[in-house]
Amino acid sequence: TARNLLLLPGDGIGPEAMAEVRKIIGYMNEAQGAGFVTDEGLVGGSAYDAHGAAISEEDMAKALAADAVLFGAVGGPKWDDVPYEVRPEAGLLRLRKDLELFANLRPAICYPALANASSLKPELVEGLDILIVRELTGGVYFGEPKTITDLGNGQKRAVDTQVYDTYEIERIAAVAFELARTRNNAVCSMEKRNVMKSGVLWNQVVTATHKEKFSDVKLDHMLADAGGMQLVRAPKQFDVIVTDNLFGDMLSDVAAMLTGSLGMLPSASLGAPDAKSGKRKALYEPVHGSAPDIAGKGIANPIAMIASFAMCLRYSFNMVTEADRLEKAIANVLDKGIRTGDIMADGCRQVGTVEMGDAILEEFKAL
Amino acid sequence: TARNLLLLPGDGIGPEAMAEVRKIIGYMNEAQGAGFVTDEGLVGGSAYDAHGAAISEEDMAKALAADAVLFGAVGGPKWDDVPYEVRPEAGLLRLRKDLELFANLRPAICYPALANASSLKPELVEGLDILIVRELTGGVYFGEPKTITDLGNGQKRAVDTQVYDTYEIERIAAVAFELARTRNNAVCSMEKRNVMKSGVLWNQVVTATHKEKFSDVKLDHMLADAGGMQLVRAPKQFDVIVTDNLFGDMLSDVAAMLTGSLGMLPSASLGAPDAKSGKRKALYEPVHGSAPDIAGKGIANPIAMIASFAMCLRYSFNMVTEADRLEKAIANVLDKGIRTGDIMADGCRQVGTVEMGDAILEEFKAL
Ligand SMILES: CC(C)[C@H](C(=O)O)[C@@H](O)C(=O)O
Ligand SMILES: CC(C)[C@H](C(=O)O)[C@@H](O)C(=O)O
Repeated sequence: TARNLLLLPGDGIGPEAMAEVRKIIGYMNEAQGAGFVTDEGLVGGSAYDAHGAAISEEDMAKALAADAVLFGAVGGPKWDDVPYEVRPEAGLLRLRKDLELFANLRPAICYPALANASSLKPELVEGLDILIVRELTGGVYFGEPKTITDLGNGQKRAVDTQVYDTYEIERIAAVAFELARTRNNAVCSMEKRNVMKSGVLWNQVVTATHKEKFSDVKLDHMLADAGGMQLVRAPKQFDVIVTDNLFGDMLSDVAAMLTGSLGMLPSASLGAPDAKSGKRKALYEPVHGSAPDIAGKGIANPIAMIASFAMCLRYSFNMVTEADRLEKAIANVLDKGIRTGDIMADGCRQVGTVEMGDAILEEFKAL
Repeated sequence: TARNLLLLPGDGIGPEAMAEVRKIIGYMNEAQGAGFVTDEGLVGGSAYDAHGAAISEEDMAKALAADAVLFGAVGGPKWDDVPYEVRPEAGLLRLRKDLELFANLRPAICYPALANASSLKPELVEGLDILIVRELTGGVYFGEPKTITDLGNGQKRAVDTQVYDTYEIERIAAVAFELARTRNNAVCSMEKRNVMKSGVLWNQVVTATHKEKFSDVKLDHMLADAGGMQLVRAPKQFDVIVTDNLFGDMLSDVAAMLTGSLGMLPSASLGAPDAKSGKRKALYEPVHGSAPDIAGKGIANPIAMIASFAMCLRYSFNMVTEADRLEKAIANVLDKGIRTGDIMADGCRQVGTVEMGDAILEEFKAL
């Protein structure tokens, strides 16, 4: 049976990075009969330029029908002044919401070859392997009202609303506990229950879910601000962190930067398993952004995009061996001292986007 | 004329740290005729134990009447299960709100003697001197509705509301720009305008305020998640950061931890200048918390509390020379290798809370 992928390269370095994944897909189809069928669409600024929207209805329909979406990156100065409703990010947010991708998995791992690239002391990040599980379809991102009102007198009032229901917290907590069982069996839940009612409910529901179904997993709670501190102080104390949409946005960026491997980090956004088929809707994207300053120069690091495809193999197609093989190929290429400019180090060989993609593909073939 | 101080030591290590400030106040009164008149009150868990509220009406009245409030720390496991409305933090939040302390100044400086204590590589933090200006009386901390509703069916809904009006953003931006002029003349404003309407308004108002009155100051904008990353990557790129209440909570904690000087960092929370007297209401507190695990052992680091008093001398009483002298005394004691346990290093002498306070006072006298 066909494996249907929708590729949404987006803006900036997105298309360059996606091109390297396309090569790997091509190879897997030819040499291994993997049966990937790919379609393409526009998202972000490029969709706005073409259709006046951050994603067209046609591409949304394709995304809903696909087994998985591979997403590059969106945004850039060119679209800084487009109306709020059609800004590049709106395409990504609509995909998350309409595909109900409530579970955002953001591994923060430190590639051994790169421990020195971190701004932290190497001993604090060597071997680092955290998984941030971020709630992705709720909270302040989507709550209503979300308005700017003119009060007269030169005054405006802006309102955003953070909303969480019990079931939303339950299901993301369950994902975190289940993933912890496949790792070091420890979850740290982060919120601001000392200030936010949503933090109070978050804390209660995570605690109850743990007690009912996952009491074999170690559970801790931390205030989100203290969590940010602890990430900087001693990141290896964490295994799985579960947190809401906005705190997850901040904390996962901090965690990603800690690793020194920012240009290498993938993410997966998953929906609930379908009642009949057991299949989850899914979108895979690099943690990094569209990097407009280096777009089109052929120097972007494609590793995060390729590693996102490895997550896709693992979570959407259960191709665990291939996922492991692709991740190993990335690690080997780094061990060989092949580097894009962002991770260049003494004694290494600097290459461009295409050469990096080629090197990983060759390594993948050889493994 | 008398200088009226209200001391609110609070919980955990708060009282131990405050005792060291009391010695300095006593010395300044005796030897220098500084004329401080101090009163005391309870806040947090200790107020709850005494009055069933996180701060009594009587102590609130004292705070409103004082020239400045010195605040220790609140909270601890003992009060984890008290009702939300009277939790320890409610005392601090009420003080901020009722005194209208909208401007929270959080310097993140790296004491030269402690550059090695940071989890970051020393060259990234040596000489670090950032000032985070956090909005403190608005946003999701105080917006209504702020509720948990029972939806039936075992489901609850939690709602928090982020609200910002133009004038709230204008006045905090003005504080940031004014302070930047006394420093390196650069402000970076952080929000999530790509997701939050309050971020859109924040960005607009900061930009307009800059254009109208502070165009001599360099202004940048950064998304708050990217800001968190940049703080970890290259903190020295920043001079003044201005941001909202919740982002400020997270970002200032991350910035504080970067310095390796967490137990040393003070903060000031200021109101608007009174139309007649020009006086600002003010509260000064350490950035660190109540550290219940080490409370009562005589080992807590009192430096953040003492440095908060130095900020009080500077901002509430315009005693700039004395503030400089007290800050210099702290730096000198550190240079001499006198350390509490939290900042202990090879070749240094470890002391307790009281000895550290004494050493700083002796140095202060000698300067
Ligand atoms: C692009 C933006 C809307 C997005 C977010 O805030 O979620 C990004 O920062 C992320 O973390 O995926
Ligand atoms: C104690 C708590 C309410 C407070 C806050 O969230 O503002 C603290 O974290 C701080 O930063 O001063």
